[in-house]
Amino acid sequence: MRVLFIGDVMAEPGLRAVSLHLPDIRGEYDLVIANAENSARGKGISKRAYRTLIEAGVDLITLGNHAWDHKDVYELIETAPIIRALNYPPGTPGKGYWVFTHGEERLLVVQVMGRVFMDPLDSPFLALDRLLEEVEAEYVLVEVHAEATSEKYALAHYLDGRVSAVLGTHTHVPTLDAVILPGGTAYQTDVGMTGTYHSVIGGETETFLARFLTGRPQPFRAAKGPARFHATELVFENGKVRAISPYIWEEPWTPSEY
Amino acid sequence: MRVLFIGDVMAEPGLRAVSLHLPDIRGEYDLVIANAENSARGKGISKRAYRTLIEAGVDLITLGNHAWDHKDVYELIETAPIIRALNYPPGTPGKGYWVFTHGEERLLVVQVMGRVFMDPLDSPFLALDRLLEEVEAEYVLVEVHAEATSEKYALAHYLDGRVSAVLGTHTHVPTLDAVILPGGTAYQTDVGMTGTYHSVIGGETETFLARFLTGRPQPFRAAKGPARFHATELVFENGKVRAISPYIWEEPWTPSEY
Amino acid sequence: MRVLFIGDVMAEPGLRAVSLHLPDIRGEYDLVIANAENSARGKGISKRAYRTLIEAGVDLITLGNHAWDHKDVYELIETAPIIRALNYPPGTPGKGYWVFTHGEERLLVVQVMGRVFMDPLDSPFLALDRLLEEVEAEYVLVEVHAEATSEKYALAHYLDGRVSAVLGTHTHVPTLDAVILPGGTAYQTDVGMTGTYHSVIGGETETFLARFLTGRPQPFRAAKGPARFHATELVFENGKVRAISPYIWEEPWTPSEY
Amino acid sequence: MRVLFIGDVMAEPGLRAVSLHLPDIRGEYDLVIANAENSARGKGISKRAYRTLIEAGVDLITLGNHAWDHKDVYELIETAPIIRALNYPPGTPGKGYWVFTHGEERLLVVQVMGRVFMDPLDSPFLALDRLLEEVEAEYVLVEVHAEATSEKYALAHYLDGRVSAVLGTHTHVPTLDAVILPGGTAYQTDVGMTGTYHSVIGGETETFLARFLTGRPQPFRAAKGPARFHATELVFENGKVRAISPYIWEEPWTPSEY
Ligand SMILES: [Fe+2]
Ligand SMILES: [Fe+2]
Ligand SMILES: [Fe+2]
Ligand SMILES: [Fe+2]
Ligand SMILES: [Fe+2]
Ligand SMILES: [Fe+2]
Ligand SMILES: [Fe+2]
Ligand SMILES: [Fe+2]
Repeated sequence: MRVLFIGDVMAEPGLRAVSLHLPDIRGEYDLVIANAENSARGKGISKRAYRTLIEAGVDLITLGNHAWDHKDVYELIETAPIIRALNYPPGTPGKGYWVFTHGEERLLVVQVMGRVFMDPLDSPFLALDRLLEEVEAEYVLVEVHAEATSEKYALAHYLDGRVSAVLGTHTHVPTLDAVILPGGTAYQTDVGMTGTYHSVIGGETETFLARFLTGRPQPFRAAKGPARFHATELVFENGKVRAISPYIWEEPWTPSEY
Repeated sequence: MRVLFIGDVMAEPGLRAVSLHLPDIRGEYDLVIANAENSARGKGISKRAYRTLIEAGVDLITLGNHAWDHKDVYELIETAPIIRALNYPPGTPGKGYWVFTHGEERLLVVQVMGRVFMDPLDSPFLALDRLLEEVEAEYVLVEVHAEATSEKYALAHYLDGRVSAVLGTHTHVPTLDAVILPGGTAYQTDVGMTGTYHSVIGGETETFLARFLTGRPQPFRAAKGPARFHATELVFENGKVRAISPYIWEEPWTPSEY
Repeated sequence: MRVLFIGDVMAEPGLRAVSLHLPDIRGEYDLVIANAENSARGKGISKRAYRTLIEAGVDLITLGNHAWDHKDVYELIETAPIIRALNYPPGTPGKGYWVFTHGEERLLVVQVMGRVFMDPLDSPFLALDRLLEEVEAEYVLVEVHAEATSEKYALAHYLDGRVSAVLGTHTHVPTLDAVILPGGTAYQTDVGMTGTYHSVIGGETETFLARFLTGRPQPFRAAKGPARFHATELVFENGKVRAISPYIWEEPWTPSEY
Repeated sequence: MRVLFIGDVMAEPGLRAVSLHLPDIRGEYDLVIANAENSARGKGISKRAYRTLIEAGVDLITLGNHAWDHKDVYELIETAPIIRALNYPPGTPGKGYWVFTHGEERLLVVQVMGRVFMDPLDSPFLALDRLLEEVEAEYVLVEVHAEATSEKYALAHYLDGRVSAVLGTHTHVPTLDAVILPGGTAYQTDVGMTGTYHSVIGGETETFLARFLTGRPQPFRAAKGPARFHATELVFENGKVRAISPYIWEEPWTPSEY
């Protein structure tokens, strides 16, 4: 089973990258997952962003700390193939995991959120312990949406040998540490953002700089610019992960455009 | 001018990686810089760690938020080629930058520390503005020791076209985003740790996991394990940066060892 | 010289408390200062809120981390008796201190912002050192707008004997520790909010609870309810502070109303 | 039933205050509770500190985020009348609540820890919901050990009418807001520290100032100085709280001593 996980799709450049490139490679994968917590101009997911992603070939959408920024999410999350972090408190709309059936095999996809430098939630470690007791699947892909590298590595080692893969998101920067851990679990600290890197993690450089320089609040505006597509490819086989590799595509552009 | 910047050298595995590998490649570089804030068993720099690095061929050592963890630093920083972050308050021991002369050219190396999710310090943006007014050099290499990807990208764009390169450190995870920005400045969000990745960012996995699982303080212990050497190579030429590329070496090991 | 310092005036209940009560006692003071960072429905200061406070008898307005939340501030701060924190970076609109002349004596009023659990700014300690070198006045009143009790106490001891009084704001809860420190400086960790305490620090209880219970963002709404007026009274005499005392007034209300 | 709750007993001055004063007033209370998370020189609880408190008349000890700083706690917490926060994860040593029987009435005492600006733990709100379902008692006293005033007020309103009293600790500064809330629950944001206020929240002023001024780590040392005793008195009657009032005592001292 070949799976492509697309990192935080950010605003118009992110949607454009997915629309332009995913159809060309869709046939190579059995399943495509995309983190879309920033797809609606940087803040949450809208119906329009949802349709764009689905039409381009995405099968499952995950969210993150920006999950609730756009009101459309409350309708989408009840009906569409979308998950939010598992370790929200009981009673949270939507669900924290999704199970795919591919041939005779099942793939469980689950997202948890970190707590270091982030909002307080239930323990991602214990939430996963409980889920892995309850749900059976040949393959398990865990997305850890977190800020601190320590928390991501800790979770990866905690799960090593118990799940197929642990992929990080949220920092909007791809990491160069994709690896198969000693216990057999594939891991990468961050898949990276799909959007424009002519920006401050997808936001307009000028307003971000104004924030850092003045110490005063500034409007958030998503950046425009040439887009990069950052994803991670996973190959599952015989009950294990066989390969993990970053996948990058860049929108053709000429310096004069931007 | 060819420069190698070695990311956070962490504890014994980090020192071992530098000792084993740097001598083999030292001849290819005009200058070798290493971040050694974690070289003394994870906490600061000791005289022993300092000697190990210098003997292996390091020319300049930089520190970080762990700069002051080992008392030896107070003596070392007065005499040895070591810098701490520039944006500490006036009166801080040591200095925040260093100037190398290579042939007829000068390279200014400076470290600043970020403030997001970190301790309060003076503005890294304004501290650099002042330094760049005062010190002249053909090439400027800025190390940004920071947690948040947003602050690192913001600083890179702020300096784009004004300095030769901006390299991030501190997260202990190498990033896959080395680039030459539109204004001509080379940039990478994090060089990555030189140490063992069989760990939680260099710390012992068991004690880190205990911290996350129990919520109670745990002793810090540096991890043992096979080492990786993570550095970034920069080539300066005709007043500009010509190339930036991650450089990785891994200690030979067999699974049975670890 | 008798000075009344009114703590964070929060939304309509805060403005109402000042309008209803300040005129009755205005004659007992030579100078009335009010923190109004939350006077415009909780977020910044508006022209309407400004007029209400001035008409009720306030002489000088201070702000805080919410200074810039309402756009009216940019016009007000250029012309009106309003100060923002001194330790914003150079180039910040407005000024960080104000000097009153009362008879032959001068009172310097200055606000600094803390940095622990707050946004990065310049050092409040060093900013005050510089100001106290530059500006001469018989009496100095320092407002420290800060979250952490440790930072407030540290600043008070740092200034003890060098300024007349240090008053804290920002937590919206009055403290029971008004004191004259060994060096002669009056100090209180927090003056407390002027607004309704049938709330979560002035915000609507329901929405605040929803935030804590769901972990999802909620709209901010200022609370309605019976208002309390929390201020601190300072008496300056012969170059020193003679007395510090909390001053409280509560709007008459009957349980059936709220 | 008359209960005295003594705020964070800090280091030697805190123990001295309790030893000197509590025996004189012990007879007026049916139950005396003390927060002792800082009793062992500021860091946790030792056997010696424990004995001092018990001999002075304390019936129950509570802890906080410093609970685990001194290794003696692991033995004490298994056998002695000591509780730690309820919302630690399952498997944490000790227990999070205690039930007293006084005549025919039961008083449940429970501590929860806040999560804003503190370490991640389980939700204090939901942990209390579960406990209040399980344990029956005529009176319930909740200690909320937390930094943010917003979280403390939110919890108080959440519990208003369901418990007898909510008392805050941790900031080491007593608040002037003791109140009986509309639903009948007594509340105070912080009881305040029992220790010396010639300090930075109990720590030595010089080292704390050095930390703020240099941005470099400093040794922690508890301060010496004249002690204050800060407690809150609660009167329970006919199933309800009848009164809440701060109780303060100050060690006699002359300026020349300190
Ligand atoms: Fe994101
Ligand atoms: Fe995120
Ligand atoms: Fe480091
Ligand atoms: Fe660091
Ligand atoms: Fe405020
Ligand atoms: Fe504030
Ligand atoms: Fe404490
Ligand atoms: Fe505490």
